[in-house]
Amino acid sequence: MDAMINSEASQETLYTEIKSFFDSAPPLRDAPDISRKLDEFLKWNSVSPGSERGSRIVCVTSGGTTVPLEQRCVRYIDNFSSGHRGAASTEYFLKAGYSVIFLYRRGTCQPYCRSLPDDPLLECFESASDSNIQVRQLHSEAVKRAISEHNVAVAKGLLLKLPFTTIFEYLQILQLIALSMRSLGAHAMFYLAAAVSDFYVPWESMAEHKIQSGSGPLDMRLVQVPKMLSVLRKEWVPMAFCISFKLETDSKILLEKADMALTKYRMHVVVANELSTRKEEVVVVTSSGKFSVRRDKTQAGADVESPLIELLVEKHSAYIEDSKS
Amino acid sequence: MDAMINSEASQETLYTEIKSFFDSAPPLRDAPDISRKLDEFLKWNSVSPGSERGSRIVCVTSGGTTVPLEQRCVRYIDNFSSGHRGAASTEYFLKAGYSVIFLYRRGTCQPYCRSLPDDPLLECFESASDSNIQVRQLHSEAVKRAISEHNVAVAKGLLLKLPFTTIFEYLQILQLIALSMRSLGAHAMFYLAAAVSDFYVPWESMAEHKIQSGSGPLDMRLVQVPKMLSVLRKEWVPMAFCISFKLETDSKILLEKADMALTKYRMHVVVANELSTRKEEVVVVTSSGKFSVRRDKTQAGADVESPLIELLVEKHSAYIEDSKS
Repeated sequence: MDAMINSEASQETLYTEIKSFFDSAPPLRDAPDISRKLDEFLKWNSVSPGSERGSRIVCVTSGGTTVPLEQRCVRYIDNFSSGHRGAASTEYFLKAGYSVIFLYRRGTCQPYCRSLPDDPLLECFESASDSNIQVRQLHSEAVKRAISEHNVAVAKGLLLKLPFTTIFEYLQILQLIALSMRSLGAHAMFYLAAAVSDFYVPWESMAEHKIQSGSGPLDMRLVQVPKMLSVLRKEWVPMAFCISFKLETDSKILLEKADMALTKYRMHVVVANELSTRKEEVVVVTSSGKFSVRRDKTQAGADVESPLIELLVEKHSAYIEDSKS
Repeated sequence: MDAMINSEASQETLYTEIKSFFDSAPPLRDAPDISRKLDEFLKWNSVSPGSERGSRIVCVTSGGTTVPLEQRCVRYIDNFSSGHRGAASTEYFLKAGYSVIFLYRRGTCQPYCRSLPDDPLLECFESASDSNIQVRQLHSEAVKRAISEHNVAVAKGLLLKLPFTTIFEYLQILQLIALSMRSLGAHAMFYLAAAVSDFYVPWESMAEHKIQSGSGPLDMRLVQVPKMLSVLRKEWVPMAFCISFKLETDSKILLEKADMALTKYRMHVVVANELSTRKEEVVVVTSSGKFSVRRDKTQAGADVESPLIELLVEKHSAYIEDSKS
């Protein structure tokens, strides 16, 4: 009984924190445009009446969020994330027949572009003799694949890309996406691979101008970002299949933290990964057990995301079946 | 006399801080490769004996440096900088006959690529009917210019690009560049447009693993990055023509801070710019006066860097003349 009161009280506190986070955030600039794109995308991908198989839509989040330290932003705290996981997973979800809303950090890895060099335009092309440009032989296949497969997915209306930079933008757009995907019920999936900041500086307590150096060390106090996973799961999309990620550098605490996240935020799956081995192996943590998923080393260029998405699609199918009964 | 003793004492302190910064920094991974590239570039661009006009080389630094908050880096503090200033200036320096060492933050704007969209490969190309790809008409000129002019400058050995990410890498590479350009005397120029972190976490006091959330606010103490401008100017390249930048969001303190930087670090020029108007106007601050430089608004696409570099090249020429007497 006491525990229940405590839990209700802490839920109350969380909701107050979340309200204060959103109230204090700078307004999302292109909200109407994003909402319009979401509406069109969901309408396009919605099931036609009488269709045998409900269309499935996954929101894949990718890359790290920034935390501005000044209102007129010069300095910010960033989370390292190449966006490789999100980009690769998007490809495998599309292959599995899902439509994908790709919520990504500006400048991070894009679907079908993983095998390109850092600066593809300058590195993959060269001037030809006739004052034209041509693709360098070495990158020819990668470039063709990137452009054709990426553009086909976008043109067919199966891939909607929405960029963010700050933690404020990320959570504001995620809320817009969640509220518009709510009507999909169990057919909606959230695959939250973005590296979301844990700490932030509340907008109103932020320095207006650039922080001045020159007078000794800089002391900063950052407050915790309210745990949006709870509210996403319980309030925004109570029926959706939700997958979050746990990245640690210390393998000793990884699985324990993944278990905690599973219970605390009532996720359906937590994907546990360690920084140094994250491209080789992940552990899929669910309430019914832990499944280790490894890259197929016998195949050149095989991704760990291939078996990972396969397993998650199976679990999602089972979840949809269960939700019918 | 007292002032002199103080100044010597503070110089002593600075050198101790710098030594401790470099000693504690993680070793630069590709130092031998960078040194080899620098040697080749300088050899290629060195004056042939009896040449009338000494060849001029400028080191342009561009983009922001990061400050890791953890040794196995997940979180870091970043300085916002698109690298637009450095990229544009590089183009105008090349046009003015300089060879350029472009020390840039990975992922920031590249010379000749300023008019391209954020994600040029995916946005500028489309699939053609014959399973080939082609440039979209809209971006055709920008793409051709980017690839041909950029690649020509690199291929002719007039542009050497060296990337960095962290403050440690930036200062380590800058030192390598400076020490190898020392022999150029007054013909060397340093154009320090990078947004360099003012504060950092010393490597040895950094958390080894990811900082854990979950237990209240996060307090951080950052210490000042030692002012390398002093040591660059006095020790590394005492004869080079040195230009630093002062960016502020508050116009009221901008010129005052630029004046201070000019005196304190004995720069030849400080370019003062305000965040909101930096693409329209800058002020060139020298010991002989302040010169306001504005973009030519009568010409479409004119850059403020065009008159800026013109003025700096004149000042550099005068400096070279002076140094002969």
